[in-house]
Amino acid sequence: MGFKNRFRQNIPQGIVPSALYLGKWILLCGLVGLLAGSASAIFLIALEWATDFREHNIWIIALLPLGGLAIGMTYYYLGQSVVKGNNQILEEFHSPKKIIPLKMAPLVLFSTVATHIFGGSAGREGTAIQMGGAIADQFTKIFRLNSSDRKILLITGVSAGFASIFGTPLAGAVFALEVFVVGRMRYDAIVPSFLAAIFANEAAQLWPIHHTTYSIPVVPDLWAPQLLWALLAGICFGLAGMLFSNATHFWGALFKRTIKYPPFRPLLGGIVIALAVWAVGTRWIGLGIPVIVESFNHQLPFSDFLLKILFTAFTLGAGFKGGEVTPLFFTGATLGSALALFIPLPVALLAGMGFVAVFSGATNTPIACTLMGIELFGADAGVFIGIACVTAYLFSGHTGIYGEQIIGSPKSLLFGSDKGKKINEL
Amino acid sequence: MGFKNRFRQNIPQGIVPSALYLGKWILLCGLVGLLAGSASAIFLIALEWATDFREHNIWIIALLPLGGLAIGMTYYYLGQSVVKGNNQILEEFHSPKKIIPLKMAPLVLFSTVATHIFGGSAGREGTAIQMGGAIADQFTKIFRLNSSDRKILLITGVSAGFASIFGTPLAGAVFALEVFVVGRMRYDAIVPSFLAAIFANEAAQLWPIHHTTYSIPVVPDLWAPQLLWALLAGICFGLAGMLFSNATHFWGALFKRTIKYPPFRPLLGGIVIALAVWAVGTRWIGLGIPVIVESFNHQLPFSDFLLKILFTAFTLGAGFKGGEVTPLFFTGATLGSALALFIPLPVALLAGMGFVAVFSGATNTPIACTLMGIELFGADAGVFIGIACVTAYLFSGHTGIYGEQIIGSPKSLLFGSDKGKKINEL
Repeated sequence: MGFKNRFRQNIPQGIVPSALYLGKWILLCGLVGLLAGSASAIFLIALEWATDFREHNIWIIALLPLGGLAIGMTYYYLGQSVVKGNNQILEEFHSPKKIIPLKMAPLVLFSTVATHIFGGSAGREGTAIQMGGAIADQFTKIFRLNSSDRKILLITGVSAGFASIFGTPLAGAVFALEVFVVGRMRYDAIVPSFLAAIFANEAAQLWPIHHTTYSIPVVPDLWAPQLLWALLAGICFGLAGMLFSNATHFWGALFKRTIKYPPFRPLLGGIVIALAVWAVGTRWIGLGIPVIVESFNHQLPFSDFLLKILFTAFTLGAGFKGGEVTPLFFTGATLGSALALFIPLPVALLAGMGFVAVFSGATNTPIACTLMGIELFGADAGVFIGIACVTAYLFSGHTGIYGEQIIGSPKSLLFGSDKGKKINEL
Repeated sequence: MGFKNRFRQNIPQGIVPSALYLGKWILLCGLVGLLAGSASAIFLIALEWATDFREHNIWIIALLPLGGLAIGMTYYYLGQSVVKGNNQILEEFHSPKKIIPLKMAPLVLFSTVATHIFGGSAGREGTAIQMGGAIADQFTKIFRLNSSDRKILLITGVSAGFASIFGTPLAGAVFALEVFVVGRMRYDAIVPSFLAAIFANEAAQLWPIHHTTYSIPVVPDLWAPQLLWALLAGICFGLAGMLFSNATHFWGALFKRTIKYPPFRPLLGGIVIALAVWAVGTRWIGLGIPVIVESFNHQLPFSDFLLKILFTAFTLGAGFKGGEVTPLFFTGATLGSALALFIPLPVALLAGMGFVAVFSGATNTPIACTLMGIELFGADAGVFIGIACVTAYLFSGHTGIYGEQIIGSPKSLLFGSDKGKKINEL
């Protein structure tokens, strides 16, 4: 086709619809970003207060069982329709049934803060994603969006929540594009996802919050030996991600099988965790930010990463609320730090690689995790971070913390038959 | 499925094949990376020599028509099987016919250096990608790889070539995953692509080469007004990418239609370019690195970007050899610099955004271009670069410099019927 015809095809047939599409999503993402970003900020403020309070009133951990009971009762009597959390957003994306109830947002906010104040081990991105997703989905009704626009809207909710909770807009945008289907990025939502992430991150920064900063002071040149060590570390991170995912599913299934009345699960779980904390200390509960910071400074023992997986999988499996990502950061950073025992790379670099790579393995989002590493630690470590994230992605296999993720592109030809199935069906 | 069964499924069924897969690709990517990276380095050294020679012997531009005739004759009598260049690699990927002849590498190397020494306007990534692809594909025969492994091998060749020619391993790895199908990233080749990019970049650095460095000294905070300006800039970059692609196709088609004997095309084209250079000067020929550097320092006129598109599209359309990417960088950086006339963002930031975003629009690889921006200019400008790249991707529509790219995910619902078609069929 000639030059003139190409242009005739593209203007106005191409440009005008693109401009209308952009205008529509600037409006929608502005709304989603403002609300989801503010929700994240309020949550971060509440979380900081809860963590401070717990650390100064350590006796409150004795009340963890009662906190668990309260969370369990709340979800059992008020939150049956939103109890599946992150997986519910993925499920609605793949097989739409009904608008996600707005109450998902306050319920998960309240329950996560309760989980943290009483000393459970959990994260925060799950909460941010659920708030973002629930807020975004309300606009489906208000603006009467069709099903393909609704999918984009759910992506913007996830993007907004993730970007604002960690202060990493590029990672948030790409995470939301990568997370719904393993091995597939949703390019049809790329502009809305970036817009929502940027708006939400800016909205959150209107509030008095701060994000923890980490640094990797020394990055060696990468030659063949360093590359091989980085690959070995990536394999370890992928297996840790798999262990984390499987441990979460295991404890969740065990609690479901053995305790029929759901509110009793976090009650009993809370008793066990409170006793465990009494026995081994508070190092592995909460978000664990101080230990993450420590992992960048000096080599830690292997017990840290194993105990964090145990505490988190048990906490979430019992029915407490929160996310998995900050515990995944903890797991990865402490494992990376421990690997410095025999891998001759700087401890901060290994901690930073693990920080994002275990997360990559457990959520199957290697490009988002690479971008997150660059946003948090700078571009200098980018190649080490990238190779760790993609290797971890390969080695975590078809496992992951989001059971509703669909395998879009099998990681290995041997598992070609998994294509199109959900992770929790495998 | 329980914890134990999951592990039984994953070990050894998951981990052992992953380890074997990794081992195989470390070997293959090591070979491809070493050879393609070294080829890129030799090419960069030759290119620097050619550019230096031309700048000190400006009379040589008068011989451009003869250089063109030589290139034309060479391809007509010796290179019929490799004349399609980059598109040939894409075509072999989508519909495999036969191994890419190794002679593609020396022919494109020689012709590109000739194009530059005699003063054509062209780039270098096309050359690097063709050398990488042709080198990589030889291992298909040697190791008797099956068709799905061959696809991965072609990806590693592209990745290795791109990464080593620009010194941007992450961008190279993701570019090779994004470029074959618009709106689709090939996650099944993610680890090999990263490995090849890293190996090739390291191999190139064993040679005495240097990559130009650019810097964006001031990045403002991004709030709603800055975001809207960045979106506007992104739209301009997307349209410039579209213009570049269409201009290249236009001149190529015109030369093909009007001059039947291929070697005469670059002969005649060379006469026109030599006369044009005599009339307007040498600013818009060659790689144009000095002008790119200038665009970061102060605002340039709009004529720079338009003339560069004209010179490059004419040079390549006439049958000279080289790439499009450095001219795309030139186009984007000078357009960004010119936009500082009315867009209130720092000129270096606009130049940097344009540098990668016009490239994103013309090649439909938004994530690779975002990573490239971060690798070249640092993580601070990441959000501005990301939003420019994805907006340019949207606004370039279903156009692009690679006619053999297949539309995997339509950019807009209005063009849903384009799915599965090649860009040059639209």
